[in-house]
Amino acid sequence: MKIGIVGLGLIGGSFARDLKAQINVDVLGVDKNEGHQEAAIELGLVHAVVDLDYAIANCDFLILSIPVDVLENLLVYVLDRISDKQVVTDVGSTKANLCDKVKFHPKRGRYVSAHPLAGTEFSGPTAAIKGLFQNKKNIICDPELSDKDALELAKRVFDSVGLQSFTMPSNEHDKHLAYVSHLSHVTSFMLGQTVLDIERDEKQIFNLASTGFESTVRLAKSNPKTWSAIFTKNKFHLTAALDQYITWMMKFKTAIENGDTELIEQYMTSANDIKRVLNNK
Amino acid sequence: MKIGIVGLGLIGGSFARDLKAQINVDVLGVDKNEGHQEAAIELGLVHAVVDLDYAIANCDFLILSIPVDVLENLLVYVLDRISDKQVVTDVGSTKANLCDKVKFHPKRGRYVSAHPLAGTEFSGPTAAIKGLFQNKKNIICDPELSDKDALELAKRVFDSVGLQSFTMPSNEHDKHLAYVSHLSHVTSFMLGQTVLDIERDEKQIFNLASTGFESTVRLAKSNPKTWSAIFTKNKFHLTAALDQYITWMMKFKTAIENGDTELIEQYMTSANDIKRVLNNK
Repeated sequence: MKIGIVGLGLIGGSFARDLKAQINVDVLGVDKNEGHQEAAIELGLVHAVVDLDYAIANCDFLILSIPVDVLENLLVYVLDRISDKQVVTDVGSTKANLCDKVKFHPKRGRYVSAHPLAGTEFSGPTAAIKGLFQNKKNIICDPELSDKDALELAKRVFDSVGLQSFTMPSNEHDKHLAYVSHLSHVTSFMLGQTVLDIERDEKQIFNLASTGFESTVRLAKSNPKTWSAIFTKNKFHLTAALDQYITWMMKFKTAIENGDTELIEQYMTSANDIKRVLNNK
Repeated sequence: MKIGIVGLGLIGGSFARDLKAQINVDVLGVDKNEGHQEAAIELGLVHAVVDLDYAIANCDFLILSIPVDVLENLLVYVLDRISDKQVVTDVGSTKANLCDKVKFHPKRGRYVSAHPLAGTEFSGPTAAIKGLFQNKKNIICDPELSDKDALELAKRVFDSVGLQSFTMPSNEHDKHLAYVSHLSHVTSFMLGQTVLDIERDEKQIFNLASTGFESTVRLAKSNPKTWSAIFTKNKFHLTAALDQYITWMMKFKTAIENGDTELIEQYMTSANDIKRVLNNK
């Protein structure tokens, strides 16, 4: 089987690594960025680097792994050109915009809309990791709009790299992800910025970053281009999440200003319950 | 040498573990909580559990490791009773309140005000870890107010568990810690709470917590009593940090609402610079 991967960054590159290791799979990589093309060859991520049209014409299965703002047009471009035997999936972090865009496309059935919940704060082909998807969750959205055989092939591909797939309407996906992924990226970025502001005047901040801070601010190292696209595409749900979060922050600040230790403690005891969510992960 | 540790939680217990392993050190533990006393004996953290007055009368060196709201009175109690040969240190996360409280105490010279930057989100004697302080930073505040021999003994104790000590005025300590530690605890707690709010209506949130979310929300598992005391004692600097942070969050939200991808990207690129701070840690 020939699998084409469009976009050889952290996610596309990690798919490439695990798929290329399988018997009878040829992995063809596509990337506009020449540096990425060279890196993908050097790192042995793919069997060959080809251009997009060659991949569309020759692959049984296509994985689109590029930033969500440019995914929509690429998906339409691919669906316009593939046959009734080929399958295309994408691994973008927002799903409703894509599912809406191609809802009435005559080849909609050949598309499987997916989001593997895996990644690190790094990016590019050098960030690609073997086994990244092992035991991670994968959300397949609006599966009733995919052809049965397309869905089955996509699941086999996802299973083969260790993903555990389950299904969800695309709009629900975007709502949930706003809370458990996109919001925490924004809080990390702004925490980083706040500390940088104070650091400008106060040199010693360098020495004081503890492991607690490091873990909380880790996501602020993430790629700005990737995430600005996600935030913009998920504007509706993300701004709702941000509103709720900012309201909590202001309530907490007021409790501190009032020296209301009882209320502060009550807020934190309630938030402690997040342990349960994490343990069920 | 006899070392008394008052408060056998995560920090006190970890000091106990490393100090007890040293030749010629007797570790006496003090804790009001009977469960902690029993756990400390069972876990072998201390040579013996004694009462506070016995520890004060018999120890060469005392480490006070209890929540910052009750530390002030304990510190005065100890300074009122120790001799000119004994030394007392504390390991609280706020320092200005303690240094102010005992500024004019006749035994001020016997006190070394310290804050080892180490810990986990867990608490109590069972959370005590061997080697917790290895290669971690330790801030000694207002060292000019400690007697030279007291400072030297404290440094030897801190060195012996692997801490790297440096000095800072207590007020600066509190300002810096507001940004690199206390603020990130608040952001974690409120992120956890925001996700719990949405989870109440939406069961599936359970499945979606990714590793990015987990790292950002980790500190929300921390002990509410410990942290409400810290937040209240550091109210002045922490509310300033919270103001700056909330302002950034609102600016970011506005940029998303306006679909201003260029500005969003600019904010994140600027925040990416936090890598530099973390690498200098």
